[in-house]
Amino acid sequence: MGISVFDSAIFGGLLSDDLLVALFDDHAHIRAMLDIEAALALAEGKVGVIPRPAGEEIAKAARAFELDPSALRQETAKAAIPVPALVEALREAVGGDAARFVHWGATTQDIMDTGLVLRLRQALDVIASRLNTTIDLLANLAETHRATVMVGRTRYQQAVPTSFGLKVAGWLAPLVRNRDRLGQLRPRALMLSFGGAAGTLSALGEQGIAVASGLADELNLPLSPMPWHSQRDGIAELSGWLSLVTACLGKMGQDVLLMTQSEVGEVREGLDGGGSSTMPQKANPVASEVLVTLARANAGLLATMHQAMLQEHERGGPGWQLEWATLPQMVIATGCALGHAERLTTSLEVNAERMRDNLDRSNGLILAEAASFALSQHLPRPRAQALVKAACLDCQQSGRHLLDVLAEQSSAPVNWSAMRDPANHLGTANGFIDAVLQSVGTE
Amino acid sequence: MGISVFDSAIFGGLLSDDLLVALFDDHAHIRAMLDIEAALALAEGKVGVIPRPAGEEIAKAARAFELDPSALRQETAKAAIPVPALVEALREAVGGDAARFVHWGATTQDIMDTGLVLRLRQALDVIASRLNTTIDLLANLAETHRATVMVGRTRYQQAVPTSFGLKVAGWLAPLVRNRDRLGQLRPRALMLSFGGAAGTLSALGEQGIAVASGLADELNLPLSPMPWHSQRDGIAELSGWLSLVTACLGKMGQDVLLMTQSEVGEVREGLDGGGSSTMPQKANPVASEVLVTLARANAGLLATMHQAMLQEHERGGPGWQLEWATLPQMVIATGCALGHAERLTTSLEVNAERMRDNLDRSNGLILAEAASFALSQHLPRPRAQALVKAACLDCQQSGRHLLDVLAEQSSAPVNWSAMRDPANHLGTANGFIDAVLQSVGTE
Amino acid sequence: MGISVFDSAIFGGLLSDDLLVALFDDHAHIRAMLDIEAALALAEGKVGVIPRPAGEEIAKAARAFELDPSALRQETAKAAIPVPALVEALREAVGGDAARFVHWGATTQDIMDTGLVLRLRQALDVIASRLNTTIDLLANLAETHRATVMVGRTRYQQAVPTSFGLKVAGWLAPLVRNRDRLGQLRPRALMLSFGGAAGTLSALGEQGIAVASGLADELNLPLSPMPWHSQRDGIAELSGWLSLVTACLGKMGQDVLLMTQSEVGEVREGLDGGGSSTMPQKANPVASEVLVTLARANAGLLATMHQAMLQEHERGGPGWQLEWATLPQMVIATGCALGHAERLTTSLEVNAERMRDNLDRSNGLILAEAASFALSQHLPRPRAQALVKAACLDCQQSGRHLLDVLAEQSSAPVNWSAMRDPANHLGTANGFIDAVLQSVGTE
Amino acid sequence: MGISVFDSAIFGGLLSDDLLVALFDDHAHIRAMLDIEAALALAEGKVGVIPRPAGEEIAKAARAFELDPSALRQETAKAAIPVPALVEALREAVGGDAARFVHWGATTQDIMDTGLVLRLRQALDVIASRLNTTIDLLANLAETHRATVMVGRTRYQQAVPTSFGLKVAGWLAPLVRNRDRLGQLRPRALMLSFGGAAGTLSALGEQGIAVASGLADELNLPLSPMPWHSQRDGIAELSGWLSLVTACLGKMGQDVLLMTQSEVGEVREGLDGGGSSTMPQKANPVASEVLVTLARANAGLLATMHQAMLQEHERGGPGWQLEWATLPQMVIATGCALGHAERLTTSLEVNAERMRDNLDRSNGLILAEAASFALSQHLPRPRAQALVKAACLDCQQSGRHLLDVLAEQSSAPVNWSAMRDPANHLGTANGFIDAVLQSVGTE
Repeated sequence: MGISVFDSAIFGGLLSDDLLVALFDDHAHIRAMLDIEAALALAEGKVGVIPRPAGEEIAKAARAFELDPSALRQETAKAAIPVPALVEALREAVGGDAARFVHWGATTQDIMDTGLVLRLRQALDVIASRLNTTIDLLANLAETHRATVMVGRTRYQQAVPTSFGLKVAGWLAPLVRNRDRLGQLRPRALMLSFGGAAGTLSALGEQGIAVASGLADELNLPLSPMPWHSQRDGIAELSGWLSLVTACLGKMGQDVLLMTQSEVGEVREGLDGGGSSTMPQKANPVASEVLVTLARANAGLLATMHQAMLQEHERGGPGWQLEWATLPQMVIATGCALGHAERLTTSLEVNAERMRDNLDRSNGLILAEAASFALSQHLPRPRAQALVKAACLDCQQSGRHLLDVLAEQSSAPVNWSAMRDPANHLGTANGFIDAVLQSVGTE
Repeated sequence: MGISVFDSAIFGGLLSDDLLVALFDDHAHIRAMLDIEAALALAEGKVGVIPRPAGEEIAKAARAFELDPSALRQETAKAAIPVPALVEALREAVGGDAARFVHWGATTQDIMDTGLVLRLRQALDVIASRLNTTIDLLANLAETHRATVMVGRTRYQQAVPTSFGLKVAGWLAPLVRNRDRLGQLRPRALMLSFGGAAGTLSALGEQGIAVASGLADELNLPLSPMPWHSQRDGIAELSGWLSLVTACLGKMGQDVLLMTQSEVGEVREGLDGGGSSTMPQKANPVASEVLVTLARANAGLLATMHQAMLQEHERGGPGWQLEWATLPQMVIATGCALGHAERLTTSLEVNAERMRDNLDRSNGLILAEAASFALSQHLPRPRAQALVKAACLDCQQSGRHLLDVLAEQSSAPVNWSAMRDPANHLGTANGFIDAVLQSVGTE
Repeated sequence: MGISVFDSAIFGGLLSDDLLVALFDDHAHIRAMLDIEAALALAEGKVGVIPRPAGEEIAKAARAFELDPSALRQETAKAAIPVPALVEALREAVGGDAARFVHWGATTQDIMDTGLVLRLRQALDVIASRLNTTIDLLANLAETHRATVMVGRTRYQQAVPTSFGLKVAGWLAPLVRNRDRLGQLRPRALMLSFGGAAGTLSALGEQGIAVASGLADELNLPLSPMPWHSQRDGIAELSGWLSLVTACLGKMGQDVLLMTQSEVGEVREGLDGGGSSTMPQKANPVASEVLVTLARANAGLLATMHQAMLQEHERGGPGWQLEWATLPQMVIATGCALGHAERLTTSLEVNAERMRDNLDRSNGLILAEAASFALSQHLPRPRAQALVKAACLDCQQSGRHLLDVLAEQSSAPVNWSAMRDPANHLGTANGFIDAVLQSVGTE
Repeated sequence: MGISVFDSAIFGGLLSDDLLVALFDDHAHIRAMLDIEAALALAEGKVGVIPRPAGEEIAKAARAFELDPSALRQETAKAAIPVPALVEALREAVGGDAARFVHWGATTQDIMDTGLVLRLRQALDVIASRLNTTIDLLANLAETHRATVMVGRTRYQQAVPTSFGLKVAGWLAPLVRNRDRLGQLRPRALMLSFGGAAGTLSALGEQGIAVASGLADELNLPLSPMPWHSQRDGIAELSGWLSLVTACLGKMGQDVLLMTQSEVGEVREGLDGGGSSTMPQKANPVASEVLVTLARANAGLLATMHQAMLQEHERGGPGWQLEWATLPQMVIATGCALGHAERLTTSLEVNAERMRDNLDRSNGLILAEAASFALSQHLPRPRAQALVKAACLDCQQSGRHLLDVLAEQSSAPVNWSAMRDPANHLGTANGFIDAVLQSVGTE
């Protein structure tokens, strides 16, 4: 229908992601729940909680069963949960005597949360794969542009020279840490949820843990020490990770946006897009914009996921519903952002000449720190700084080059002409790029 | 597809709203944009910026034109805006010489923002109407239960007696203020957006204001003093209002949830719903849960709407996209919450007997304040309070009634038996109910 | 101590505001509460709920009483509310028989919420006054720069010419609306809070409304129809307004930041500040940065204020505490932002020459929309746009001026040389400035 | 001053934490920055970037130097950073020739961010220690109450029996995971920040990495692969962890609040506190309230920390300032919450009798699931459920016990009297408690 941009036919190509949507939409939701009912029946059949043939019959039927999501609409509106209606439909599909063993001893939240986990597992595989691709692309880009000298900027002002390679390494380094984080959190976020009515597996008596273990095996999911129905830390931690990823990409997008400004012109999105409805010359930086958008959207949704953690007693209502309204958006946003990041990185057009021009446009002001350190070899640092500061003012008024003014105003034996090339002032940039690239490889 | 609960076939009956979705989804989006292109062409034809017959031809075509939202998907993915593709499709539909006058002098944001305003206007009409209904229902409920005595609770503890009528009046009073707020903000939130490429109506030369006025007339929208492309205060104020409404309803939902607790049992949702997949006795308070959920969802989204206000220069990208991802959800959530509030209020089953029982279960502790004031007529207030506090401890251990203990322990000439009925301690409750009901009527 | 930047001795001059802090800190908190105890005693004495001389005695003592905030620390830690300890201290200060009539019939929340309202009233006076000053300063600036032509930018790219006056008008217009909003919300946000233990004024019996009216008169505050202990819409609406103000100023700050970039250089903060610890040439745009910071801080805090609205039953605990942790920061942030906005607007150095240079640097691309409309008089608009688009590409590669290329490539009878001056393409800019300035005056 | 509750003399004992404030306030801020200037001088002296004796002289002076925070106020207001003024004051304190080598090659952000890291390291030690204490206390409590049978509640309704031990284990399990998380994130969050003017260590030439390594050694901090000036993922990840901790505690606080309700009465905060200014009988659940408050406060602030991640280019302004305004509050809130959790857990009074009473008050409805499974051994599950559902309705009207009604209405050979004790329906509760306690021990 398209109330949400993630579901919109109009905006879906921009702000959503077909592949992840297919893993996360209503159909996938139902599919995952049915797969769990199947696995549950098998596990219970093996343990002997239900007759083994009934378990197999249910599993077969559940795997073959297709249900139109809208069939669950009315009952979900009444009960606030889709599982009773789903179970009823599945029972009908199973038919016969086995039908009564469907969903044996489970509660709605077992099915929905584990279903979420199954979908998250698939989605995280896609996301991890895209993250790896983006990491590799950025690593190449950083390597390629080690020697591409450009303006380093702090607080929106030209500061000192840097290289575009180091800037790219700065986008890359946090993504490598995000890859590490994902590995660490996966076993906490992707656990079987299985506790029965109120987290005691009351209906399974002595056999609760055996069934839980069997179900975990069927689904290849780790067990939690106890049911996590109202312990949402794993889900919330994951949502924090999604927002970390989009925020890191959003920072990259913001940097690119600033570099694409007409007056800066250091890079262009090389994508075929960004036209205006009225200005023929415009090529808007679409992918970078979207990276900023999705970063800010996820940051906001993250707070909601943490608010949702205060779920009452054994199982809460509103907090859990709040996750339904929030987490899927965050998953799609993250996958979508990584897709844009890949395309952006692949196609980015780097204008090394404009980078160099922007360095030169400062009349040497960008070398002010370097000049002040050079002078500090010969006179007290505060005096050196004062001298350079005065020379900077002179340059801003006169348009002369800072090093020329300093050569004139100071008798200190500094080799001013050797200082002139910004490429001589990159400090440890290459060493840092090496270290970041090495961190990529260590995984 | 159903990534968002607002678009989900499964959850749509619970957490979304068909009527509002129809006013706000992809189809409505396109419809609104086409209506604006129609109105623009008419207005420009009247002013003479374009040939009048061309304007009429475009308007007729635009109004008849139907476009599948997915037709805009690919170009929107490229340009981050659907209008260039829409305009091209419309030009084809218009055909002939008039085609070139489509979208004359407008920019994408004019069409999209005004399109949003048209949809918001319709949605706010629905929302205002539901708000009025809820106000009327609550007013009746407050009137009905003036004399239904119950426990007043502060900080999760029994405090002093109150009436259910006053509690309902407490849900009602903020809704009346929200009705006032809506009237005040509508002209700020629902303004024509029309500024051309960068807010100067550059392509219309001298005729900019005439066209803007004509367009405003066609659409029956107020003009802003200047284009509001990157002035988002009206939209953000509206989103704040939506969240005020859902938060006020969320407070009501939270109160009902607490009152429906098995141990409290003072009210029940009278809706046919809330079944459990495993516990036959359960009747879950679905509507109240949803009210809390949507309140917290909107509160979080509101921050995003305010973050989105920092839009760069004449027209920003990410901040605007952030609104697309956020505001529609808030609109639907608010309409959905009001729907639940209506149904909840209509069907609420009030158990006056349980309310009275809960009062009685305190062994008179709930009369502690009253007792301490009665004693304060005869001894210093701190001594009175200390006496009552000691008696309270006694009651908690002995299970005796507070007034019995006090009668025994104090010689002050208090008429303890007259104090015994909680209904004698409602203070100004009726006066307050009157005042709230009067505030309803003043509109 | 300085955990919060608003309380920090280091950061207080940057991110806080001495005047508002003095109206809002611990001392002011106690002062306000004592003033209310004074007014309550007077009002109750007049109505006869307590002896009139006792009321006067209490009022006199309360107004003279000074209490070190740390004296309340220990009891507040125990009870989560400072009023019991304050009342006890006040009773001691009053002494004698009158002491027992202190705080008669009131509850902690009456005193704290009304105390908040008194402090908010003073703070809003300061804030409103600064808002007026900023409005006037921006109005002057817009008027001064009507004819200062500059680049209009959309989505980070040069779009079409505009004037700096119109840009300033765009910062101004939402502030004028914020002034209107404040007038409308004040009576809803600044109401007497007085309901007694659980909102029934139970301890005052028949005289509740008389005392409430008298107290409202003493404090010159409007009455609400019923106590608003757990109706937080007024406070939340106010917090939304504070965030609207800072977001509007944050947008201005963001624009200035972008214009101060070394490569853009169109304005400079004329404040004596922004030095770097290592780069002598740097002059950082401090005020603009702070405007963005405080906008984003307030936007986040706003969500918390709306989350806090779900307060349980007659009086809630956590939601109310959440306001204490949140609202004061928002008030100070808003006052601080307005202070920075004033100083920024007063001292802003506008470089009209750089504005003109940046227009010229596009080789006429910024006139692409104008050229396409000029051509559209003579050929179909899509063909005109295609022609201009091709010419734009040519310019980007050849460095030639767009109008030269078009003159060469098109035989259409366009007066290309008359088009060359960007000042001829300001469309309705002046009319819009007029309308905004007029909106300022209407108050 | 007390604008923030974390700095308030009034509220500091409730919502702040003296120990953590001392590690994080203005004084600690200055101390940490001076320690870094000391370590930097030593490291540079060892590498030979500055004369070794000068390095030692600076280090000695910096460690002995005391500066009143207000001495930095004025310059911080101008420059938005306190380091230039601090460095100037330190240079004066050092005096002589060595003075000019103070802060050699570093930038403000190196000093401030590393100073933050030093303070965070100390604060996290305190927080980790409290977390361990809380874990141990909860583990004991869970063990103690294995056999304390109580109502399990889902969606605010009685569901099936559980044990208080399992409920406590449910508060404990996420805290154990939080302990694991902290261990994993510490090396990412607590890294040396050292990059010079724009992240290239430009002023140190070839010796950048040697100085960085030496400085990291002096401070016992890990190096990052490259300076993290505008890579805020480590800080944001930490803030996410802080919010996870408070949210997990907030869930516990919410549960306790619900259990302390007068009508439920299953636990009481055993702290001497919570008095009311007007109601002598009240004992408010202060610690639990605060846990909820701080959870929701942190959840909101977390979004701001993620919004702050979008820092521009090599070093951003607003995003960084936003962290200053946000992170310290989160640290104190978390420490404060853990303090309350400790006190709450230590002193919690568990009323096993009321727990049993509440179980009994359902007339056996709480055994509905068990009854339906017992019947399902003998008839199809849907028929069993329908039978039980009908019996539940009967009980609600008649007040009879569910098992009596069922015994009457069904001929199935169920041993109804053996079912009567809720303690027989705890399913896997003990096994789950074992597993959680084991997870505690594994660290």
